[in-house]
Amino acid sequence: MALIVQKFGGTSVKDRGRIFNVARIVMNTRNAGNDVVVVVSAQGDTTDDLIAKAAEITSDPSHREMDMLLATGEQISIALLTMALQELGVSAISLTGWQAGFSTDRSYSKARIKRLDTERVESELARNRVVVVAGFQGLNRSDDITTLGRGGSDTSAVALAAALHADRCQIYTDVEGVYTADPRKIPKATKLKEITFDEMLELASLGAQVLNNRSVELAKKYNVELEVISSINPVPGTIVKEEANVEGMLIKGVAKDNDVAVISIKNVPDVPGMSFKVFSLLAQKNINVDIILQSSGNEAGTKDLSFTVPLGDAEGAASALKAAASRFGGGEISVDKHSAKVSIVGAGMQSHSGVASTMFEALFNQNINIKMISTSEIKISVIIDEQEADKAVAAIHDAFIN
Amino acid sequence: MALIVQKFGGTSVKDRGRIFNVARIVMNTRNAGNDVVVVVSAQGDTTDDLIAKAAEITSDPSHREMDMLLATGEQISIALLTMALQELGVSAISLTGWQAGFSTDRSYSKARIKRLDTERVESELARNRVVVVAGFQGLNRSDDITTLGRGGSDTSAVALAAALHADRCQIYTDVEGVYTADPRKIPKATKLKEITFDEMLELASLGAQVLNNRSVELAKKYNVELEVISSINPVPGTIVKEEANVEGMLIKGVAKDNDVAVISIKNVPDVPGMSFKVFSLLAQKNINVDIILQSSGNEAGTKDLSFTVPLGDAEGAASALKAAASRFGGGEISVDKHSAKVSIVGAGMQSHSGVASTMFEALFNQNINIKMISTSEIKISVIIDEQEADKAVAAIHDAFIN
Repeated sequence: MALIVQKFGGTSVKDRGRIFNVARIVMNTRNAGNDVVVVVSAQGDTTDDLIAKAAEITSDPSHREMDMLLATGEQISIALLTMALQELGVSAISLTGWQAGFSTDRSYSKARIKRLDTERVESELARNRVVVVAGFQGLNRSDDITTLGRGGSDTSAVALAAALHADRCQIYTDVEGVYTADPRKIPKATKLKEITFDEMLELASLGAQVLNNRSVELAKKYNVELEVISSINPVPGTIVKEEANVEGMLIKGVAKDNDVAVISIKNVPDVPGMSFKVFSLLAQKNINVDIILQSSGNEAGTKDLSFTVPLGDAEGAASALKAAASRFGGGEISVDKHSAKVSIVGAGMQSHSGVASTMFEALFNQNINIKMISTSEIKISVIIDEQEADKAVAAIHDAFIN
Repeated sequence: MALIVQKFGGTSVKDRGRIFNVARIVMNTRNAGNDVVVVVSAQGDTTDDLIAKAAEITSDPSHREMDMLLATGEQISIALLTMALQELGVSAISLTGWQAGFSTDRSYSKARIKRLDTERVESELARNRVVVVAGFQGLNRSDDITTLGRGGSDTSAVALAAALHADRCQIYTDVEGVYTADPRKIPKATKLKEITFDEMLELASLGAQVLNNRSVELAKKYNVELEVISSINPVPGTIVKEEANVEGMLIKGVAKDNDVAVISIKNVPDVPGMSFKVFSLLAQKNINVDIILQSSGNEAGTKDLSFTVPLGDAEGAASALKAAASRFGGGEISVDKHSAKVSIVGAGMQSHSGVASTMFEALFNQNINIKMISTSEIKISVIIDEQEADKAVAAIHDAFIN
């Protein structure tokens, strides 16, 4: 008898039919002889509806009151799903985040789990009940309700699986697993049987938004085996674990990210400390810089500095730099919002030569110009014109996977 | 500086406009130099919407899960009202029932408050905040969410007022106070300045549904001065307290209750123990009997027994009696569902002779036949044909109040 944590997102419980679909998945898992803890998000559009209600009242709601408001969404879901399980004859009980023992820090709207006291969950499991837990929420030290922010329910599920030493944590979604590329755009994209935590982290950060990064980090930290699986089609999904063994697959995926702006500063004095000045300024503004490209110094004693930031941070970064332009020698600052990042990910690439050249050759064959390059042990990213990104993904996918 | 508890029902917070209306009432009370605790119900139709969601899942939801579900309604209200107060510049914080310290017994869907730990509320008041509390809900000994049942938010408000030793508990409604009769039907009905707890209890039980009876009982027990007041028109409402002093008003109100069935058993043997057998049978079925009329024994050694029950219990009572008919001598059992109860209430009537005869004279003048009569120290009720009830109320109101 295994203990399985199953997480279902908002679309999986959006109406009566989907709720019973989830209830039957849980019932089947239970009837196969497993203990089951279910983590569930707010129904379909509930969170948006609640945000709209708040927006009618104020354009600037306090984060504490927003969390108080939004936490009702999951509370509605757990009650309805538990009723559906009971209607199917499955013994079940719902628990809010705080009832399930989630203690968080004080950061309303993006709280982090500090402690998870599973006493109540374990006592309900011992009574042979399916335990239905509200994802996304917890309680801080002042006994105030907090929410975990984007993808919080995935994090709740992984944290429960870790604390309960569950045998597996299944993340049910609308897709059948993790693919080598976006299957809506690359018809030849294939589903991966297995993928490592690190590869999954790289893919997630590249815009393949199957799993929330915090949840994957947590799963890696506590070595919780994840399965990304469809709540519609009952076929095996993708296992995410420490060591993945997929014969002959050099790379696991090709991903595209359009949320990229390239900021360039020309003619920065080629003296020590310049990069530090630029990037400490951006860090103060809480702007995350991804790829950095620095040219070699030229004869005029200057160099060019380029880096990428998320699109939403582009104007903030540019204006911060312009306000402090004198510190960088007054060089011209430009913002390019029409780039995309295309990346390949694969833990095997570090031990295989020629991966980068195969990728660059595929782009060259399509006459696609590479603006920037970044590499890590399991990833190679290029910045190219966003209009060529889809063509680039297809070409690279062809070169490696088929 | 006084401490005032203000309670607002669901229609008072049903949309943005009404929420800000409530926020301004609270702000004005605060700006007048008072500490304010606000108790609020679920918005307008939220509770009905949640019940409909549950009904889609199951026709027989567990009470625990229903309470889990319904408690979200007030949680949404408190967050939105607190945002509105903050938007108006009023320092405020929302608290769920359990955060506000409401401990209840285990009876899901109709829990009773066992204990109220006001530590959190008091600490927030000490920080000069308006405290916005979710009515209708609490937590039982297992840390499970419970709801208080019908009119629960009134009870929450009175309990808070009692525990905090508040100077007044204001119950805001859609009416301007307690009237001598239903003002929609009796144009001459006048608003009472004051009324005693006992009078209010009798009026509430008679269908003048301004205040929930449990909340009035609680207010009487802890001597909490209530004010029934309009959330729309800023005029003084009706004060409910232990001793009311209204010059010259012999009776405080005339009320009509259509939820009455008269059950009669003819030719019951006139021997000891018969009434006990009848009414213990009904008590076993949890059927509340109101007025009882027993004829004197006749020459045949039998008597007739009539009593009233709520309409919803009429068939259950009749079939229970018919099943046990042999015990009552097999007398004929009849059910009359077309009666109404018309009552006058007034603490002063016990010291004034002629009250009953004035009432009966008013009915006689309208040629209305009285089927049953019941009297208490502060109330006289008659059972009449329901088609004549409105005419009876008007005639009695004329006789006493104008």
